[in-house]
Amino acid sequence: MIYEAQSRLQDNIRETPLLSSPFIDQLAGRRVIIKAECLQHTGSFKYRGAWSAISSLSDEVRTRGVLAYSSGNHAQGIAAVAKRFNSPAIIIMPSDAPKLKIKNTKLMGAEVILYDRSKQSREDIGEKISFERGLTLIKPYDDSLVIAGQGTLGLELARQLKTLEVKKADVLICCGGGGLCAGVALAFSDVAPDLRVRPCEPESYDDTARSLKSGKRETNNNLSQSICDAILTPTPGEKTFPILKELVGPGLVVSDDEVLFTIAEIFYRLKLVSEPGGAVGLAAALHRQDQISGDAVVAVVTGGNIDFEILKKAFER
Amino acid sequence: MIYEAQSRLQDNIRETPLLSSPFIDQLAGRRVIIKAECLQHTGSFKYRGAWSAISSLSDEVRTRGVLAYSSGNHAQGIAAVAKRFNSPAIIIMPSDAPKLKIKNTKLMGAEVILYDRSKQSREDIGEKISFERGLTLIKPYDDSLVIAGQGTLGLELARQLKTLEVKKADVLICCGGGGLCAGVALAFSDVAPDLRVRPCEPESYDDTARSLKSGKRETNNNLSQSICDAILTPTPGEKTFPILKELVGPGLVVSDDEVLFTIAEIFYRLKLVSEPGGAVGLAAALHRQDQISGDAVVAVVTGGNIDFEILKKAFER
Repeated sequence: MIYEAQSRLQDNIRETPLLSSPFIDQLAGRRVIIKAECLQHTGSFKYRGAWSAISSLSDEVRTRGVLAYSSGNHAQGIAAVAKRFNSPAIIIMPSDAPKLKIKNTKLMGAEVILYDRSKQSREDIGEKISFERGLTLIKPYDDSLVIAGQGTLGLELARQLKTLEVKKADVLICCGGGGLCAGVALAFSDVAPDLRVRPCEPESYDDTARSLKSGKRETNNNLSQSICDAILTPTPGEKTFPILKELVGPGLVVSDDEVLFTIAEIFYRLKLVSEPGGAVGLAAALHRQDQISGDAVVAVVTGGNIDFEILKKAFER
Repeated sequence: MIYEAQSRLQDNIRETPLLSSPFIDQLAGRRVIIKAECLQHTGSFKYRGAWSAISSLSDEVRTRGVLAYSSGNHAQGIAAVAKRFNSPAIIIMPSDAPKLKIKNTKLMGAEVILYDRSKQSREDIGEKISFERGLTLIKPYDDSLVIAGQGTLGLELARQLKTLEVKKADVLICCGGGGLCAGVALAFSDVAPDLRVRPCEPESYDDTARSLKSGKRETNNNLSQSICDAILTPTPGEKTFPILKELVGPGLVVSDDEVLFTIAEIFYRLKLVSEPGGAVGLAAALHRQDQISGDAVVAVVTGGNIDFEILKKAFER
């Protein structure tokens, strides 16, 4: 499915570059290679999964429209791809999502429905509207076509690392529901078995790290106390977790403060804009050195949709 | 010389990507292609010229060391390349240069000498120290090897635009002393004669635009009243101006306020960090539409070494 997604995505997504900085190598105590996926269309990897899913629908189904729930990056990906296919899109977003993400999703032509994430279930709202209006629901991670789309990043990264002669390394990727980690790990298992995905999470949203330890899907209790809005999911996905369990290394966990530090480094050293969730992988490279093995480490900066207020916090820190 | 520089630079510089955004296309009223050269090593195109010049020195000369004067980007380029060649570097910088640029230049191992740009001449200080210590002075733009190095961006860009099937377009490039504009225009004249360089400058530092009109090198009077620190030169270079006069289109001039607006758009739409000077080309694409011809326009974001205080201004605007 990943190879099929790759042929549908080709010419429709950007190949995002690998970057590096001697300053970051020094901070991390080893060579660090950064995959700048925040430069993808709509500013995050979610565009890959969205394209994979929407391009697979029949014309008839696509014309009726698509529906998604998302804190913002999947929303923008779906909205932008739906627009490219002239397909109507409805997006259900939490009312406390970053303003930039809500605004951009609307600007991309989608109808946005806000909900209170402490009181309402986005899954329930989604299924109700999807049924009433005959729309196809595209879940943010528990969808094989979406996972396959995210997996194309793995194929691309493996090829790029080969040209740098990096064959064996830990690849640090932020983890919410696990769609990107699962897709990339599947891709690596076929083309680069010595690249190992390490899911990275913020403190108190470390459900994946704990689940990988216990062998079953663990849950987070609180749902509103990290700046990493993009990856605050309650538990690993039903479809993603079995893949993670089989293919990825132990999880890594970082604090919001370490993420803020990393956002500023990404800004000053790489000239990239990273959102908090997108910086979690590199934050782990800088702050969990003893839990990482190898001379080189790879970190994926997965998204750049940050409100200026958060960036300001990173610099005031 | 540009082709020779290209073969020395190969594998030592980054090929920087082309980016775009539907939001920016809409603002500009045409298709806009952005060359993200702020992702180059040391955060600016100056690394190309520095590599070209230092890699051309004999081992004996290089071992004695190099000297440069610069408001910051040429400084960082020279310091970083000198370090790669184990060559001592002394850099003369204005005391009011962005703190980040001074700090990074020191971190790269160079000795930094500060001067007061309103009272002292960097050329005089440079020649004195260069003579006393036997160092090779590498000028920021009036040096054929430096111009040739910057020209490699033109070869790279022409090749990238060919794959997008863009053959004819205005290419907007910020202009201080004119090294990048001259190098790129020379490269285009050989490989892509329908790409036309348009030098872009901030208001009250529009010496190149005025010089191109009058046909002789005009001078700016005030030297400290624009945020575009990287491109505040008094007059076009002796070596660059004859090239500009022959090969580039009319200059474009933008205000600091238009530059601040553009920095914020580059941040939000492209997930890139641009410094004021680096944003001048895109600012012209957004604000001088009637002076640009063609369906598509290309803007080079030339550098990303910005202090946070200036970015804050861009968002408070």
